[in-house]
Amino acid sequence: MRTPVFILSDFGDQDTYTAQMKAAILSFAGFDTPVIDLTWNVQRGNVLHGAFHLSAALPRLPEGSVTLAVVDPGVGTGRLGLAALWRGRYVVAPDNGLVSMLPEPMSIWKLPPPGDEVSSTFHGRDFFAPCAARLSVDPGWTEFLEPLSDPVLLRVSPGEPAGDRLAAEVLHTDHFGNCLLNITHELAGGLTVTGIVTPGGILPLKTVRCYADGTPGEELLFLSGSQGFMEIASSGGSAAELLGLAPGMGVSLTVKESEPS
Amino acid sequence: MRTPVFILSDFGDQDTYTAQMKAAILSFAGFDTPVIDLTWNVQRGNVLHGAFHLSAALPRLPEGSVTLAVVDPGVGTGRLGLAALWRGRYVVAPDNGLVSMLPEPMSIWKLPPPGDEVSSTFHGRDFFAPCAARLSVDPGWTEFLEPLSDPVLLRVSPGEPAGDRLAAEVLHTDHFGNCLLNITHELAGGLTVTGIVTPGGILPLKTVRCYADGTPGEELLFLSGSQGFMEIASSGGSAAELLGLAPGMGVSLTVKESEPS
Amino acid sequence: MRTPVFILSDFGDQDTYTAQMKAAILSFAGFDTPVIDLTWNVQRGNVLHGAFHLSAALPRLPEGSVTLAVVDPGVGTGRLGLAALWRGRYVVAPDNGLVSMLPEPMSIWKLPPPGDEVSSTFHGRDFFAPCAARLSVDPGWTEFLEPLSDPVLLRVSPGEPAGDRLAAEVLHTDHFGNCLLNITHELAGGLTVTGIVTPGGILPLKTVRCYADGTPGEELLFLSGSQGFMEIASSGGSAAELLGLAPGMGVSLTVKESEPS
Repeated sequence: MRTPVFILSDFGDQDTYTAQMKAAILSFAGFDTPVIDLTWNVQRGNVLHGAFHLSAALPRLPEGSVTLAVVDPGVGTGRLGLAALWRGRYVVAPDNGLVSMLPEPMSIWKLPPPGDEVSSTFHGRDFFAPCAARLSVDPGWTEFLEPLSDPVLLRVSPGEPAGDRLAAEVLHTDHFGNCLLNITHELAGGLTVTGIVTPGGILPLKTVRCYADGTPGEELLFLSGSQGFMEIASSGGSAAELLGLAPGMGVSLTVKESEPS
Repeated sequence: MRTPVFILSDFGDQDTYTAQMKAAILSFAGFDTPVIDLTWNVQRGNVLHGAFHLSAALPRLPEGSVTLAVVDPGVGTGRLGLAALWRGRYVVAPDNGLVSMLPEPMSIWKLPPPGDEVSSTFHGRDFFAPCAARLSVDPGWTEFLEPLSDPVLLRVSPGEPAGDRLAAEVLHTDHFGNCLLNITHELAGGLTVTGIVTPGGILPLKTVRCYADGTPGEELLFLSGSQGFMEIASSGGSAAELLGLAPGMGVSLTVKESEPS
Repeated sequence: MRTPVFILSDFGDQDTYTAQMKAAILSFAGFDTPVIDLTWNVQRGNVLHGAFHLSAALPRLPEGSVTLAVVDPGVGTGRLGLAALWRGRYVVAPDNGLVSMLPEPMSIWKLPPPGDEVSSTFHGRDFFAPCAARLSVDPGWTEFLEPLSDPVLLRVSPGEPAGDRLAAEVLHTDHFGNCLLNITHELAGGLTVTGIVTPGGILPLKTVRCYADGTPGEELLFLSGSQGFMEIASSGGSAAELLGLAPGMGVSLTVKESEPS
């Protein structure tokens, strides 16, 4: 039974690029290899947005699976490729920060440099896909790879409480307009978030357990989302539209200390 | 050989939510389980639109297949989950009306309540996906489930002829701008539809057999579509745009009785 | 081990049409048949745009694979269906020009006419999908098919140099705004392209090896793309948006003869 290969990219859906990577995987690893789209909608060239999606999804993927992650504005330059092993799941990616949000410990190896036959504009298909396919059929390959001791890691700020404010950042806004913040469930456990600072004043946030707990159309909600982070949602529509939020933007939340329980 | 699992949702394509459900299915049922997107573009939270897509596609899916249907604005509340068996195909869904457009007879069972380890914001991944996976490998599971005698059913109006008018509703507008109406081929068989009432007057509808039967750019067409319903199409573009139609909107058609044949 | 079936269409992602074709393939060829989306985003009814995507992707697909190509504005009319064999890969499509950009030699056969049970609005599902599925399990079927000696072929202009100008056409604009031109790497090898003629004057094109070779935000790039054609890219954004280009539009490039090497 073949190990599945998941694909994350910023390739969108206007082209056959993703299919060409899948074809490269099937050609190498066998036609019965399951290849599954993780997402093709990472923002164009936004490595940190890709890092978010990878860290949110990877814990949910089966052990032994391989994820091919291609957000690669530096394709064709000298940047390295890497293979990583995180809690039993493999990742193949350019060494540009895509693994920045995966918590330690993680094993990382350098991929061998691409051969001369590889195009200079599509390493996802010509280089990374065959590497991911090889890893899916031969995980022992890593024994022959050189460890990568200094992978590129992007600064990922954690949410930071200071007095009655909590500075946070939007990691992602989803299809429903929910705004995923860089505030883990653990961090949020010690605080009570009461509102969000906007140009028009502080809007109250109601801490709830599920999206349906709000009054339709009237409330901004604050809840533990399914991706490991706290979310701002709107009971009647898109919180991202209401608040004008997008990935990478900063937000300031008002907090009070949780009552000791 | 594994039974395929199809997935219908309103999750869009901005996130890894669908992939996380697929991962849950593969983890439970085996990596060689075919998982296939039915659609992720049900309108956000629109259960009736999901019910349309489910009823249009289900007759085309292989017998023995399982369809995981997740349009679930009430996730985390007390609403039940169900498993249904319709003409040899299984459906797993929240009990909120998603099976409303499947004609009787249908067997329906209650799913057991989710355990405490299930998130309150993503039952699709944490609860319904494993249930669908289980049903795909063990259809006999239903023998241990309690029948659901009173599933939530939404009102689905059939098209209604009255004199020389036929009141109908738009079930769906497709990628080509074709407007699928709640008029079955059977109902249409006894009528001759001649036009559609618009604010600017009655526009003629030409009954045709296929989309290419119209004069490009000039005609509104009325034909038996491939999804089991009558459609209004435009020979030169999008009927939905021309007429300003969207799912859920009502339309009034002019009819005359068919000549006896 | 099953042969994969790839699917190319202009069906978009608003419907379950692609899934219904996949279900038809699995029902015929077996549930373990890999079915993979090549693209569903061919421009609506634009056969030449479909022909581009087919010719760009086909060389990358595994030998023995079958590609189901459905861009079919003439569905339900008398147009024929065809099966083609190109360098070991099969294609099943309406006979309307979809194979126009595949270089000779190619073997082409007529598909038998659809039976009476086939809908007049969705041959992709009811006729072409079962034909593709049959070919995937029984390639010898072609021995029983009649050769098609005069397939419909659309005019595909090659780029044409004349003095210091090169008249070309946009075949496709991709998700990143790269403009793929009908200029093969071979044709480009004998020329040095220096600029593009726009209403505001001639803008310089810098010939580079990879997308990262430009100065962000300042330059238009000209490079050998991964799809077999020369591309105009922008180092800081979307060349398609900057230049207002879309598939089917003509462009005029300025050239000088390459120095003899």
